[in-house]
Formats: sequence, structure tokens, C-alpha cells
Amino acid sequence: MRKIEHLGIAVKDLKKSNELFRKLLGKEHYKEEKVEGEGVSTSFFMVGETKVELLEATREDSPIAKFIEKKSEGIHHIAFDVEDIHTEVERLKSEGFEILNETPKQGADNKLVVFLHPRSTNGVLVELCQEKK
Amino acid sequence: MRKIEHLGIAVKDLKKSNELFRKLLGKEHYKEEKVEGEGVSTSFFMVGETKVELLEATREDSPIAKFIEKKSEGIHHIAFDVEDIHTEVERLKSEGFEILNETPKQGADNKLVVFLHPRSTNGVLVELCQEKK
Repeated sequence: MRKIEHLGIAVKDLKKSNELFRKLLGKEHYKEEKVEGEGVSTSFFMVGETKVELLEATREDSPIAKFIEKKSEGIHHIAFDVEDIHTEVERLKSEGFEILNETPKQGADNKLVVFLHPRSTNGVLVELCQEKK
Repeated sequence: MRKIEHLGIAVKDLKKSNELFRKLLGKEHYKEEKVEGEGVSTSFFMVGETKVELLEATREDSPIAKFIEKKSEGIHHIAFDVEDIHTEVERLKSEGFEILNETPKQGADNKLVVFLHPRSTNGVLVELCQEKK
């Protein structure tokens, strides 16, 4: 866990939230990207070494649509930057954490990503991110 | 907003969560501190330039006790590091954000802190932090 790579925030309307976070953070987002596999449109802001990632659902069965229905808009997950995602998954498994996808999947922003189940991490949805080589 | 100063995570049992986050982050916490004004015991881990702050309620009317009762354990707030908290409060007020305490109060880890109401920030409880001089 080298740094907090990004914070994911679930939003209902990406366009409105882009404007809100532009005012909050005092800067423009640096890109938007769709992640078809997760059913989300994303928008990224840089704050120091960490990204703030806004996430809007693009379909009803998207994890973000379900999260907003259950809990409303707000902080959805924390993503940690790791050097080698396979090594980190093995370490966390041996420590008793519950891995949601053992095979890393394609995330936004050129990453391989793995999620841990919040029931093993104090209710926090944790993502591991490794930059794709 | 120079960086993400810390992420606050509401926990039921600080001792158990210290052990869990030690395993998750692969490192020890660097300190514990009580903040009487907020009714919380805190524990801090460093990850890159950002702190992970675990928060346990020390009394029933603590904001953390109320949060856990309403939403369960999990991510409670994001704190941004600011150079001058008064300037930043004025800027955010002029942008239409709702300030919870206009007079900065004493936070953990030698900070002056101001909170924004989540209803003006997409459901995210935002804290501004300025290092006390």
C-alpha cells in the first residue's frame, strides 16, 4: 500500500457533480472515462498525489446504481496503489481478508484492480490498484 | 485544497480495528489521540502523504456513535489540507457550500478544522484542516 491512489464517490448526475467538485476543489477535472465492465462513467480530479473519482451508473445493474439506491450518494470506496497486485492479494488472503475478485480486472485509468469485501474491512470497500505495464 | 490530509473511518472497537488496519496496510499506527470536544478516540496510520484516521465514539452523543447507529461502520469523512482555513471558508461560502462551523475548532493532530454539510457536497462529509502554527 504505497499511497491512496483514489477515492471513489458515487453520484447521480456526473455533469452536475463535476461542476460541484470543480467549485469544491478549486480546479477542473482532468478526464472522463467510461468503464463498460463496471457500468460506470467516471470523472477524475487530482488533489496532491490522490485522485478523486466521481462515478455515475450507466445502467440499472451497475454497483453504483445499487449503492445509491441503498445508501444514497457519497463516498463509495478507497483505492490503494500497490506495486504488484498478485503479491498483495496473496498477502491479504493469508491475513484473512475476503477477496471479491482474485483475478484482477480492468479498472479506469489504465489499472488492474481487485476489491476486498467490506465485511472483512470494517465496512470500507477497499480496492487495490496496480498500474498496467 | 493541497492534498487529502486524512480519511476518517468510523469504527466500533478501536483496538480491534487497529489490528485489522495493521494487517490491511502492512504497518503499525503511529499514534492514538482523544478529542474530547468531538467525543472520539482516534488512531492514525500514514499511507503516502495521507493519514487514515480510525474514529471510535467515547460517548453516546458523539457524531461517530450517531453515524454508526444510522449507517454502520465505514468511511465517515474526507479531510483536505488547506493553507489558510479562513480564506478557504470564505471562498467555499461564496461558491454556495454550507459551512457547519464557521469558527474553526480544535481537531486531532494539531489542526484547526471546519466541516461542510454533506447536503451541499454530494453526500460527502468534507473537513478542511489547517496545521496550527
